[in-house]
Amino acid sequence: MKYSIGVDMGGTNTDMGLVSENGNIIQRRNIPTNAYTELEPYVRDMMREIQAMVEEQRVRDGEAVNLEGIGIGAPNGNFYTGCVDNAPNLTIKGNLDFGKEIHKYLSVPVVLSNDANAAAYGEYVYGGAKGMKHFIMFTLGTGVGSGIVVDGKLVHGSTGAAGELGHNILIPHGRKCSCGREGCLETYTSARGIVQTYCELKGCPVTPDVTSKMIGELAHQGDPVALKTWETVADQLGLAMANSVTFSAPEAIFLMGGPAQVGEPLLKPLRAAFEKYLLNIYAGSCQIRMSELRANEVAILGAAALLKMK
Amino acid sequence: MKYSIGVDMGGTNTDMGLVSENGNIIQRRNIPTNAYTELEPYVRDMMREIQAMVEEQRVRDGEAVNLEGIGIGAPNGNFYTGCVDNAPNLTIKGNLDFGKEIHKYLSVPVVLSNDANAAAYGEYVYGGAKGMKHFIMFTLGTGVGSGIVVDGKLVHGSTGAAGELGHNILIPHGRKCSCGREGCLETYTSARGIVQTYCELKGCPVTPDVTSKMIGELAHQGDPVALKTWETVADQLGLAMANSVTFSAPEAIFLMGGPAQVGEPLLKPLRAAFEKYLLNIYAGSCQIRMSELRANEVAILGAAALLKMK
Repeated sequence: MKYSIGVDMGGTNTDMGLVSENGNIIQRRNIPTNAYTELEPYVRDMMREIQAMVEEQRVRDGEAVNLEGIGIGAPNGNFYTGCVDNAPNLTIKGNLDFGKEIHKYLSVPVVLSNDANAAAYGEYVYGGAKGMKHFIMFTLGTGVGSGIVVDGKLVHGSTGAAGELGHNILIPHGRKCSCGREGCLETYTSARGIVQTYCELKGCPVTPDVTSKMIGELAHQGDPVALKTWETVADQLGLAMANSVTFSAPEAIFLMGGPAQVGEPLLKPLRAAFEKYLLNIYAGSCQIRMSELRANEVAILGAAALLKMK
Repeated sequence: MKYSIGVDMGGTNTDMGLVSENGNIIQRRNIPTNAYTELEPYVRDMMREIQAMVEEQRVRDGEAVNLEGIGIGAPNGNFYTGCVDNAPNLTIKGNLDFGKEIHKYLSVPVVLSNDANAAAYGEYVYGGAKGMKHFIMFTLGTGVGSGIVVDGKLVHGSTGAAGELGHNILIPHGRKCSCGREGCLETYTSARGIVQTYCELKGCPVTPDVTSKMIGELAHQGDPVALKTWETVADQLGLAMANSVTFSAPEAIFLMGGPAQVGEPLLKPLRAAFEKYLLNIYAGSCQIRMSELRANEVAILGAAALLKMK
């Protein structure tokens, strides 16, 4: 039987999954990313877990495992170089050449990209974007990421770092962003940006007690400030999405990530804002849709999907 | 000898050129677009001129002309359908099926796209973008257009109308745009937008006497209001360009069109603004360049270049 490995490298944890040809995660393992400061021991332990999954699968199936390869979604992951370049939120520093390190253990294809690109490609191979030639994925979380598919291919650009729509400047001279500039989409529609908007509207200080999840729950209870927060976020995200349509005229824009789980308090005003801001020639040509992959599976499936790239 | 025909369909005039394989315009003809209200007589007269050029070339070369096809750059031109759909600034109304009409006269490939896409592709085939896989073209004129090349292919998107960066909303709730929305890039960096900025800074009414060309001349004479105008435009265009990099991480952004001819009063602050607004991960990876095609040739060459699309 044919399988692939998807690796979701996060700042805190690294989740690994053995994925079947039809997109089911058959086995899962994880190691704590932040326990490592060097690539060598990190990959050694990662490979130990991967090889254990492969071995277990061999026993279960009663036949040799046909392993298609290892796909990795990682912060600052570069598709062209196969490296992770100085990701600010990783404890393992430097230019990390995964392919080289992995090939000390296993001679299989290794494909790497950043996490949002991987999520977009996962949607394409296993999710709601199957068969679409043009779509965009926005991922809301600690930051805001994006992955763009044009003519059925993930857009990597000349450097490998295409698809950073979270750092589109939405409001000139707006909120200060961690990237050093001002007004990036991420400062408004990331979990932290949403919290900031809520606290501004509420007139309270930003404390760790206030989370986007809590603001979601308050909205479902009818809290007017929470509802207003989601409307504001929807307006900002709707504008950014409408702007992205002028680039590639996608069939759909997908949305995923923790804050997007709030559902209608965000989605209803988002669809209205998107329609309001969309250039008339695109009217009716592009839908906003939620990712069809499970939140706890998308990162592994997306990483595994990278191996399907032509 | 092998030739192609490039047709630049403007609201006022339709320019046609016979283009050699290496990108020289050998012959030119034109007809007044706005003298027509129906497609049939328009294409009849267009084909009369095209066939006259082909016949003259046959006589000149002393051998049959190998005609690759007819490429058309037109407002609202749709690559997929080969039609021009209700272009607001054309006197010929409706859904114009050029291929069908042209094939009554000549059985050659007909390729059609909007004028900015054609300009981008002309730069790729005959100009400064030769060999580039990822670049973006901004055209400044009555409006602001754009053409985007990703992985060596023009981006048409799902509808054929991709690459409308002139209608990216740059400043939320900004200037009223002809598209019915507010704050589009076009309202700031089109010829008209530039005039408006100058008049706002000068505190004078917008009259037909004030042109972007004149503001260019004033800037070269050191007029402080004109210089400030170009700095303002550069800041707005630089922001839009930096935002476009987050999409496709191009190697270069090309600039063309009348207002761009002003040169350094625009280009110098434009490069500074672009650098200021560019996300750090792209630093040094993308240049701003002027189109290398002559202003009076780019439209015909771009239209002819469409025939080279794979």
